[in-house]
Order: sequence, then C-alpha cells, then structure tokens
Amino acid sequence: MSVKIDFSPIAGIRLGSAAAGIKYPDRNDLVVIELPLGATCAAVFTRNAFCAAPVVVARRNLSISPPHYLLINSGNANAGTGVQGMEDAEACCEGLAEIADCQASQVLPFSTGVIGEHLPVSRLIDALPQAINSLTEDGWVTAANAIMTTDTVPKLASRQFLVDGMPITVTGMAKGSGMIRPDMATMLAYIATDAIITPKLLRECLQHAVEPSFNAITVDGDTSTNDACVLMASGMSPAAPISDMKSAAYQKFCAAVTEVCMDLARDIVRDGEGATKLVEILVEGAESQTEAKDVAYTIAHSPLVKTALFASDPNWGRILAAVGRAGIDGLDIQNVGIWLDETCIVRNGGRAEEYTEEAGQAVMSQSEFTIRVALGRGETDTRVLTCDLSYDYVRINAEYRT
Amino acid sequence: MSVKIDFSPIAGIRLGSAAAGIKYPDRNDLVVIELPLGATCAAVFTRNAFCAAPVVVARRNLSISPPHYLLINSGNANAGTGVQGMEDAEACCEGLAEIADCQASQVLPFSTGVIGEHLPVSRLIDALPQAINSLTEDGWVTAANAIMTTDTVPKLASRQFLVDGMPITVTGMAKGSGMIRPDMATMLAYIATDAIITPKLLRECLQHAVEPSFNAITVDGDTSTNDACVLMASGMSPAAPISDMKSAAYQKFCAAVTEVCMDLARDIVRDGEGATKLVEILVEGAESQTEAKDVAYTIAHSPLVKTALFASDPNWGRILAAVGRAGIDGLDIQNVGIWLDETCIVRNGGRAEEYTEEAGQAVMSQSEFTIRVALGRGETDTRVLTCDLSYDYVRINAEYRT
Repeated sequence: MSVKIDFSPIAGIRLGSAAAGIKYPDRNDLVVIELPLGATCAAVFTRNAFCAAPVVVARRNLSISPPHYLLINSGNANAGTGVQGMEDAEACCEGLAEIADCQASQVLPFSTGVIGEHLPVSRLIDALPQAINSLTEDGWVTAANAIMTTDTVPKLASRQFLVDGMPITVTGMAKGSGMIRPDMATMLAYIATDAIITPKLLRECLQHAVEPSFNAITVDGDTSTNDACVLMASGMSPAAPISDMKSAAYQKFCAAVTEVCMDLARDIVRDGEGATKLVEILVEGAESQTEAKDVAYTIAHSPLVKTALFASDPNWGRILAAVGRAGIDGLDIQNVGIWLDETCIVRNGGRAEEYTEEAGQAVMSQSEFTIRVALGRGETDTRVLTCDLSYDYVRINAEYRT
Repeated sequence: MSVKIDFSPIAGIRLGSAAAGIKYPDRNDLVVIELPLGATCAAVFTRNAFCAAPVVVARRNLSISPPHYLLINSGNANAGTGVQGMEDAEACCEGLAEIADCQASQVLPFSTGVIGEHLPVSRLIDALPQAINSLTEDGWVTAANAIMTTDTVPKLASRQFLVDGMPITVTGMAKGSGMIRPDMATMLAYIATDAIITPKLLRECLQHAVEPSFNAITVDGDTSTNDACVLMASGMSPAAPISDMKSAAYQKFCAAVTEVCMDLARDIVRDGEGATKLVEILVEGAESQTEAKDVAYTIAHSPLVKTALFASDPNWGRILAAVGRAGIDGLDIQNVGIWLDETCIVRNGGRAEEYTEEAGQAVMSQSEFTIRVALGRGETDTRVLTCDLSYDYVRINAEYRT
C-alpha cells in the first residue's frame, strides 16, 4: 500500500537543535519541533506509575490545546524529581512560549536521560534561541542525533503513499536503547505526516500503530518513566483530507504510520544496549493474546535465553524451560513445537528426531532470526522483537547512569 | 527455639557418592541417599510445565511407597528428553533396585545439568556399586560437592533443638546457582532429620518451610525444569514422636527445618552465577501478598537494577522505575518510600531531601544490604533474596550448557 522511501522531510514541520550542556558539554541535547498553525497531534505516554514530570505536563497541555511546539532534551529525564521537577518542566515550557510568542500550554515537554537529578533549567532556556534559530524542515537527522542517550545510531524512517494520485508522506524518528519494554507507548518517538486528518482519526491511528511496533519490543523488560510517542500531521499535503475511518485513504495512512513505527521499533531493538542479535519471537496457537504474550515475553526476558543468543548457542533447553514457566494453565507439552527459523528443535514436547546441533548452530549464528513456538491450544498469535544479553549490556549499565 | 550448629550427620541417613563420567571424567556426579526402614519422606517439585522425566517418576514413586533410596546425578538434567527420558529415569531406578534389593518404586530419581540430552544410563548404572559401597552417615560433604553444577561452593546447614531434653537434629544440603527462581519448590535440596514424625506433619512442615526460603529467592527469574526439595525423617532420635501440629515440639521442628531451608536458600543466592552481592528486597505496606511479591520480583529481576547493584551504583531511579512498572493498580507514588538499609533515598515519591550520593554509595558498596520499599497501601510485607548481574553471569551462561 505504501512505499518505503529514503528519509523525507514533512512540509510544515520544522526541527531545530542546540547544545545546552545538560549532561555533556558541546553535544546537541536540545530539540525544538515546530508544528504549523492548524496541525493536529496525538500522543501516547508511558504507563509507569512513576511517570516523569514532563510526561505529566505534556499529557495535560495536550488536553488544553493543539501543540505549537515540542521541546525535547536528552541527558536528564526529570523523573523522580517531585514538585521541583514539575516546576522545572513548566518553566521550560514558559521559557519557550516567551521566546516563540505562544501559550506555555502550546508546548509539550519531553525529557530522557538520568533519573532523579534536577533539570538544569537555566542552561536549557539559555540554549532555546539557538534551537529556534536553527528551525528547518531538514532538521530531522540533527534532531535524531540530539535525542540519543546510550543509542549508538540515530533512528529515522519514512513511507509514502498516494491518495487519488496525490502523495502523503510519513516520517518518524525515535531514540531508545536501554530501559526498553514500552507499555502502551514507547521510548521517545516522533512521527510526522503532511496528511490532512482529523484529531480523532490521528489518535485512532497512533493507538493502532504502536501495538505491533513499540508495544511489541523489549530489550531488558524495564519500562521507562519517560516513554512517549507523538504523531503530528501538518496538513500540507496536496492530497484530500482523511476523515473517514473506513476510507481507503485512512487504511493506507494507518499502514504507512504502522510501518514507520515498526521500522523505528526494530531499529531500537537492533541498537539495544550491548545487542549483537535481533531476534523475533513468534508464538502461535495460543488461546488468547495474553497467553501468547506471556510466553513470548518470558522467552524474551529470560537471562538464560538471552545469554545463549549472545553465545550463538542453540541451547533450546532454556527456551523450553521458559515456555514451561510462563504460567500457562494446563499446558499440554505434548502439543508444543519450537523452531529456530525453519529448523524444528522441539516436537511433541521433546527434542525433534531430525534435529542436529549443526542445524541449530547455523541459525543461531545469524545476526537476525526467529524463534517460533507453537502451543497447539488455539488460534491466537503474537510477535515480539528482542535482542541478546552481552558483556556490553553489563558494561553499559554498570557504568552509565540512566 | 533451635540452635545453629556445625554441620551434623543424621542417625540412620547414609550417603554415598561416585564418579559416573556423566559430563566430566573423574568428578563425583552421582549420589545415593539411603533412608532406613520406617523413615518418612516428603517432597515438593518444580511447577515448570516442562518438568523433567525424573521429576515425573519421583513424584509418582513417592505416591506408591515410602522411598528407600534417593538417586541423584549432576551433569545431565534428563529434561526435554521425551519418552526416552522417562525410560532412562525408570532404568536408573531399576538398576539401583536390583543392586540394593528393593522395589524400583522405592527409588526417587533426581537429575540436574544440561537440558535436552539423553542420560548416559549405562555409565550411571555402572557407577552405582561404587556409590553404594561408600554409603556412610558422614557422606554429606562429599555428596554436597557431587551434586554441584555451576555452583562454586557446597551448601550445607544444620540446626538442633531439644524436646523434653532430648535432641533432634535437622541437616540439609542444596545445589543451585543459575536458573534460580524456584516456584513451590527449589533447586535440588535434601534435608534430613532424626525426628520421629508422621508423614502428614512432615509434608505440612516442608510446605511451610519452602515458602519464606527457596520460594523467596531469585537469581535470574528462570524457574528450573528440575527443582526438587526433599525432607527425610529417619526416626532415630531419642526424642518422643511428633504427632500433634499444635505441640511445642512440632513448632520447634518446623522452625528448625525452616531455618535450615533459609540458610541453604541464602547460600544459593550468595553463590548465584556471577554474583558479587547478596541483596534482600523488603516490600512493606502492600494490600496483598501478590502485590508485595510483584513489586519485590520486579525489582529483583530488573537487569538495570541488577547491573547497578554490580556497579555499587546507588542509581535509585532504576529501583523507582521498577516499582512504577510493577503493575500495581492505582499506586499513589506520593506514599512511596525507598531505603537502602537505613538510608532513605525516596520519600513521598521523590528524592529524599537529606539523601546524599555518598550515603547511598556507602550502603551499596557492602556485599550484603537491604532495599526496602514502603508502598503505604496496606499491612502486607514480603521479603525476597536476590543477587547482582555481573560480567561473570554472562560469561558463565554464554559458555555453559545448562
């Protein structure tokens, strides 16, 4: 339906970056995204009970008026910072509103970085003019770099499709590498489109798009305090407005947004802290989505499975043990099958007769592969992306203050 | 009530060991424990759906008659081995029954080691005479060494108490280092007493003793396929029989068994794969035990918390984030407090004013300390023991076939 294209800017959406010295000197750590008048915007946020101050403020501001600016900083999460943290988040919005001549409630704040330290508000506000002055539709790559923390590569994706011959583009950027097990949202992800679309459909589309993408990835099982995913529509495409949920245009739009989200989600896992492998966990034949996810995440979070992935060791006993402890009531192991890509390792609850260590090893040595588990209980499938657990994960997290 | 004593043998319980060459040559990997005629025995097993063949056979045999022998091997778990695995476990029992002149159903088999490979039954049976010939009441230390896999130290504990001036002794041994998050049972643990006690009370006592001990520890969250915990009573103490659940003698007995289990459980976590720290997680003020455990295990399993523990880094934001994602419905973060030993790090949902990095660092640098979380919701507490996640955990599990 939509075509994958090289990264493309979005008419009307401008991005500016600056170095505010929040954690490190001389590194871009501040991003301002400007939405044109009349743009629509939808967002989903973390469900961690200790959600950060900027999440609280952004959620509230979004309910007051359509945002004119997004203000993002890396290097400090402004989470676990109590009353002071709320005041700091508000102060940042007010600082930008003053310079840009809008209401503070038209600014959505986002923060990522170390938890529990107060935001250096004055340094951040001092850097705002530099960010504002650099606003440009071509600012995506610089911005995608500026929002990184332990990420090693910036994450960008684009899709394009036609409605009655007129192009609509969807472009997104994301950051995230550790503390990744998004819950109804994601790490920071910003997706923009030039489509003309109603706020209600934009929200519908975002909810739909995050489920198979950001909500189906895990690096370490740790849901962040600051996850947020924003979908902005500038309304500057020459294509006709999208206002009907049953229209082909909406279906195409939704597919394009979902694909951009899936690209970015995959990039996040591939860039997971210390990750050397990208592994898809496919659970088939479950009785319910809950059951399928329980099995998929039990495998994806098992330190024993993850270290075996790192070692390229087809230690399928660990996968089997994870399935067995996933809490599936009345699981009949006689019906369980497990595959590494096309290689069957477990059939009827035991080692497949034709299985050879060499065949398993060949699959596991790849940088990307699929672990497929058939439960033989029902018709529900699910899919989760994860990565391995390496020495570097320990090094990064024993040295870095999240 | 009971006194901690140096390791003490149990009258009537004899242990023999042998080298069967199951995984490595010239290393003791086979243990036979002999129970005297008239002894009573209780056992709990893993609830992993893929429980190993020996677990199935041991559970069945225990229901047929009181066991005369326990037969334990390390180096191979005989798990995920299908029909052949069941036949192998039965063959081992029959082999021992033939030599020792008893029924095969009077033998309980136990295996620990690599999952998914077939047991070398003939090598195991060939080594049985050596194990039988070495049976002695003083065989505990040799046996505790023989059942080790990635363990670095043998684990033994004893308690003694008096009933009307007559001594009763409880002694136990356990193994376990990785794939440790027992569920209603434990890794392999064998506890013996000379008490005269009814089978029903022995079962009651074991159920009671495993809850705050083996069922409250986690190394990596991975519940084994082979967990088993056995409590044997030789009935050779000079003390009067224990037959009343409300008697002081039963209370003392139960306390002694629980303490032995807690000693062994603590030894397992202290010897967790790659562990450098032993950390107690205390969750207070929960509305229910489920809620308290959800919070405690979310902290205990968080790779980000575990790597911070390894780094002695008081990165309390990670603890706070774990509490926040534990899925507690309607958690009011204003009521949450977190302490490292006596140092308050979070009060009313934010960083405690008096907290200093130095104070947190001082606690975290110890080899043992407590993370205490007060939820402020109810009256229920729970306690879980865990360890850190180090480079060595990755090394051990990227190199070793569980």
